[in-house]
Amino acid sequence: MIVIMRIDCSQDEISRVANRIEDAGLKAYVPNGGGRIVVAVVGQSFPGLRDALESLPGVEQVILVSKPYKLASREFHPQDTIVDVDDVAVGGEGIVVIAGPCAVEGEEQLLATAQAVKAAGATVLRGGAYKPRTSPYEFRGLGEAGLRLLAQVGEETQMPVVTEVMAPEDVDLVAQYADMLQIGSRNMQNYVLLDEVGRTRKPVLLKRGMACNVQEWLLAAEYLLVQGNDRVILCERGIRTFENYARNTMDINAIPIVHRLSHLPIIADPSHATGKWYLVPPLALAAVAAGADGLLVEVHPDPDLALADGPQSLTFENFRLLMSQLRPLAEARNRKIAIPRARVKP
Amino acid sequence: MIVIMRIDCSQDEISRVANRIEDAGLKAYVPNGGGRIVVAVVGQSFPGLRDALESLPGVEQVILVSKPYKLASREFHPQDTIVDVDDVAVGGEGIVVIAGPCAVEGEEQLLATAQAVKAAGATVLRGGAYKPRTSPYEFRGLGEAGLRLLAQVGEETQMPVVTEVMAPEDVDLVAQYADMLQIGSRNMQNYVLLDEVGRTRKPVLLKRGMACNVQEWLLAAEYLLVQGNDRVILCERGIRTFENYARNTMDINAIPIVHRLSHLPIIADPSHATGKWYLVPPLALAAVAAGADGLLVEVHPDPDLALADGPQSLTFENFRLLMSQLRPLAEARNRKIAIPRARVKP
Amino acid sequence: MIVIMRIDCSQDEISRVANRIEDAGLKAYVPNGGGRIVVAVVGQSFPGLRDALESLPGVEQVILVSKPYKLASREFHPQDTIVDVDDVAVGGEGIVVIAGPCAVEGEEQLLATAQAVKAAGATVLRGGAYKPRTSPYEFRGLGEAGLRLLAQVGEETQMPVVTEVMAPEDVDLVAQYADMLQIGSRNMQNYVLLDEVGRTRKPVLLKRGMACNVQEWLLAAEYLLVQGNDRVILCERGIRTFENYARNTMDINAIPIVHRLSHLPIIADPSHATGKWYLVPPLALAAVAAGADGLLVEVHPDPDLALADGPQSLTFENFRLLMSQLRPLAEARNRKIAIPRARVKP
Amino acid sequence: MIVIMRIDCSQDEISRVANRIEDAGLKAYVPNGGGRIVVAVVGQSFPGLRDALESLPGVEQVILVSKPYKLASREFHPQDTIVDVDDVAVGGEGIVVIAGPCAVEGEEQLLATAQAVKAAGATVLRGGAYKPRTSPYEFRGLGEAGLRLLAQVGEETQMPVVTEVMAPEDVDLVAQYADMLQIGSRNMQNYVLLDEVGRTRKPVLLKRGMACNVQEWLLAAEYLLVQGNDRVILCERGIRTFENYARNTMDINAIPIVHRLSHLPIIADPSHATGKWYLVPPLALAAVAAGADGLLVEVHPDPDLALADGPQSLTFENFRLLMSQLRPLAEARNRKIAIPRARVKP
Repeated sequence: MIVIMRIDCSQDEISRVANRIEDAGLKAYVPNGGGRIVVAVVGQSFPGLRDALESLPGVEQVILVSKPYKLASREFHPQDTIVDVDDVAVGGEGIVVIAGPCAVEGEEQLLATAQAVKAAGATVLRGGAYKPRTSPYEFRGLGEAGLRLLAQVGEETQMPVVTEVMAPEDVDLVAQYADMLQIGSRNMQNYVLLDEVGRTRKPVLLKRGMACNVQEWLLAAEYLLVQGNDRVILCERGIRTFENYARNTMDINAIPIVHRLSHLPIIADPSHATGKWYLVPPLALAAVAAGADGLLVEVHPDPDLALADGPQSLTFENFRLLMSQLRPLAEARNRKIAIPRARVKP
Repeated sequence: MIVIMRIDCSQDEISRVANRIEDAGLKAYVPNGGGRIVVAVVGQSFPGLRDALESLPGVEQVILVSKPYKLASREFHPQDTIVDVDDVAVGGEGIVVIAGPCAVEGEEQLLATAQAVKAAGATVLRGGAYKPRTSPYEFRGLGEAGLRLLAQVGEETQMPVVTEVMAPEDVDLVAQYADMLQIGSRNMQNYVLLDEVGRTRKPVLLKRGMACNVQEWLLAAEYLLVQGNDRVILCERGIRTFENYARNTMDINAIPIVHRLSHLPIIADPSHATGKWYLVPPLALAAVAAGADGLLVEVHPDPDLALADGPQSLTFENFRLLMSQLRPLAEARNRKIAIPRARVKP
Repeated sequence: MIVIMRIDCSQDEISRVANRIEDAGLKAYVPNGGGRIVVAVVGQSFPGLRDALESLPGVEQVILVSKPYKLASREFHPQDTIVDVDDVAVGGEGIVVIAGPCAVEGEEQLLATAQAVKAAGATVLRGGAYKPRTSPYEFRGLGEAGLRLLAQVGEETQMPVVTEVMAPEDVDLVAQYADMLQIGSRNMQNYVLLDEVGRTRKPVLLKRGMACNVQEWLLAAEYLLVQGNDRVILCERGIRTFENYARNTMDINAIPIVHRLSHLPIIADPSHATGKWYLVPPLALAAVAAGADGLLVEVHPDPDLALADGPQSLTFENFRLLMSQLRPLAEARNRKIAIPRARVKP
Repeated sequence: MIVIMRIDCSQDEISRVANRIEDAGLKAYVPNGGGRIVVAVVGQSFPGLRDALESLPGVEQVILVSKPYKLASREFHPQDTIVDVDDVAVGGEGIVVIAGPCAVEGEEQLLATAQAVKAAGATVLRGGAYKPRTSPYEFRGLGEAGLRLLAQVGEETQMPVVTEVMAPEDVDLVAQYADMLQIGSRNMQNYVLLDEVGRTRKPVLLKRGMACNVQEWLLAAEYLLVQGNDRVILCERGIRTFENYARNTMDINAIPIVHRLSHLPIIADPSHATGKWYLVPPLALAAVAAGADGLLVEVHPDPDLALADGPQSLTFENFRLLMSQLRPLAEARNRKIAIPRARVKP
């Protein structure tokens, strides 16, 4: 931690800062000589000290040198983490494609979609049973009936399934049916939910909050890791900016940044990041080119009739087309599309 | 709803759009004559139709004419809503000042603060028992013990109390102790929590999500109103922008915008909107000048030692100073500081 | 300057950083002992060294301790600067109201507006002769004819006039007619223009770039100051954020921040910051409550027929109403509306 | 244009809107029947009418149906435009790589870089002679001496050269030396400069303003096209968002959006979009995967010693590595790296 004093600070103010640091059991250091006075603190800081120092008189700014997350950092864990979602490895050589409808609407829709995306090369099935909706008047998902359908269709097509959990009290129920729990963008900083999901041992797909920076995202992952759940996959899904032609701005920068700062795998969701189906393929390809370990793509048999997020869903045909473009691109990056293996559950 | 077709759309595509609208039981209208073809839909739209139309071929854009919220809108409810928090009226002539520490740390701290802010003119006491913290390593509040202290000190100083509730399963517990429930910025779109709080009949302080626009905020209020809880107070607390000298950018524009679009009262939280104590007074005054119905201000006996958000807390002395500046300013706007009345509980 | 090394940096990398600093004639300091290695540089850094250090191997981050602007900083010049615009003092006790039409359209429009705003209490007349327009198909101003009209009406009504200059080659011409030169938001980082305006000795109204932070704004002011023109008035006019109900988000935070960091006066332009006439009065009041030294307000005899920015212009009646609200508010802040004095030109 | 009236508007207000439209020589249309009253205007609108209508009483919102740009739109010009920069075609099958130092520092630096980037596969040489710098104390380029060096080295290595022009009065001079004129991000809305560059017949590289949306960018291109210069190449270089780990956020969404809305070619500048050399290769690859027609990459013999933007420059070795990754990726997208041809000047 570095404390930068105001140019006009007094000797007393410097001493007070140094004392406050030593009261906390740390070592304060005040360099002699000209220029701006800087107090460097050697040692591990604890929560709140930064704030305390920043409000002392004469202090201009306090800078944290250490990253505030530990378990999520690459410094702590230099090797890439690979998360197994059932028999699919995320974070290794293979690009994992997770596909399916935004919301589970019924058996026919889900089964047809699952078969189509599997045939085209997807490895994991997605589908929402609990949907966060900006308006209380919109379709909010089938709930447990949706979970049951999802598990059944996953079994039938031999694909692991991922679905969103929105409330702490639903975690056990959703975990019964799903192979991976999704924490949605709006809940990335729902710490009670993070704690609860962290207590399971299920893989977690942690979407980035639409106004959260990478550090806050990794801190949300830290909540899961601290609870003992180290099977965390990050998912970039677009951030909120002034540009509003598309629904969000896909932050492709975040992909190599996450790989540099953290060992956790990261995938990309071009469907939510753009909100328009015709932007999904170019952004999907871009994400993989930048190093994403996988994709989360919305597919619907008839997007015109979808109960949620129709305009961003690919038709079966467009999804096949995307997969045919993705294959050579992955190879150009020395990767390949992850291959679906026979599903062997205990 | 207005559907704008692409310039090169075919007659068939127009017919398909019109048919889709009439299948939904609404009336489609296709004006004759040159220019861009526009299909105006007369009647009440239903969830999902917009999305369905937007994904039809030949469609460029679908524009909603009606606002997506109803109960929160001024069109639905032209008069200002006044919310009674115990015996304090929010949304009327009086400017309500809610003050107290960020987190409840102990009895002494809380009681001293409550007495100081009451003496200076505050009417409602705030204090966090459950704290959302970006990092899992920071102080997360005293929990129920904090609630108890808050209720006790509120009773002792005859001030109604407000505190944050973070999890749906805590709503009943928090409602036992608090006179008003606060939904924090990070939970503004936690719809399960909104549903649950909407089912109580307690006043709710709904903070704006830091990346949510006014429409999304009013839709979050709509979640509460739809459940039958119409005692909603909005709280502007700064939005996230590229400017990072202060923690957030206080969106003062939002105050008159909310007054225009909605009948709900709106207050401002300059402490979180700035993150720096020396910016709190000017922003507090600005918010009231722009029409805010009240303020939420953090005050701490010794901000240097605060366990949370020290640098943004006012000392007792600075709070008194702010109140002395606020009084003439409120009068200049033909308002006054709400006067604390003797608290009469049944 | 502080150089933060990566946790896994080598001793060689540290030495290379230290050598690079000493090559530049500065003093490097490497604290002994545990924790993150930090090299503090004592002395005045020079342009480019930061970038050079940041690209060395083993370096994680370079932090500048000193502010990059000097002449604009309060540390360099602790007293508030007062800028005289003809006989009107900006930055002192008086709140200076600058008002007039967005664009000069003709003599009748301008004279009527000037008389109306003067009668209501404005002290300086504004009007655009050169208009930056997002589209090449919009009205771009009357050019020199507009300048002539402005000067003539300013003379007639005894008000100093301010108008925008957009091109370096127009500076001399505009300076012949105007009492103050305005640099618009889109040109805040047009450094050739800044240099040229800095060479005049005219007061300058420097609007904030809509995506520029306070530091970049003060650096733009520094361009003017370095050329010897110290008559700089800053003008907050809204920044670009994700919220798009209003045209921009007025950054009221910036007002006290500028007062803290700089000695230059700052005024606010609620017309461009909101783009909607009905938001102008509350934001104008908020800006003054937060400490603004003045206002820039668009007024038009018939906003429905205005050639530019009609929806944000106040009618004469609404301007009078605003002034009647501003007066008591200024007094509540121990200020007053600057009083127009008889104009005495040499 | 569509005028949406307030729900409580009067019949008189509707008539006034309709009359105002017909006064302008257009046709107003008021649908009968329930719901929100909508006035659709058939015909070509003219500048300012929208604003005029929006300020009429009873009007809630005015929506433009037609895009405000014409010459830049794909509707106007359905085929892709290919811009020849000397003998290099931008916008066709080939991915054009423009590379070189941020600033021209001297002959040795420039020649070495030109030879290295050409050997690795770049086709166009970049180098700044006039540098826009946020601070007046930083290196601002060699000026005409830099232009001369650039032209000389371009001739020697047989590469066309591109360089930034910052001031209208420099356009002729820069055009004498350069094969393509660059308009920088900070000058995207410097309309005087756009006019002047539009009057030349040189290819123009128009960088996106860091807070400008795609529509404003295409309107800036329209300024050039309206002047008769149709040789415009757009360049995405990152936008300003709340995320500040990297210098900007590369808006990859913008690439397919521009291809949909416009016929102009678009390239990407990952160096400025990230500000960190290690993020340049993944973002370069992502941009091409998303459909970019080329890249603008900063390369420096010794980034540690660069006078400007060192941390974002690639070394020769890293540039070669990028090119070796780019080749297979371009092929996977059915494109190839544009091949340098012998330069044949008339």
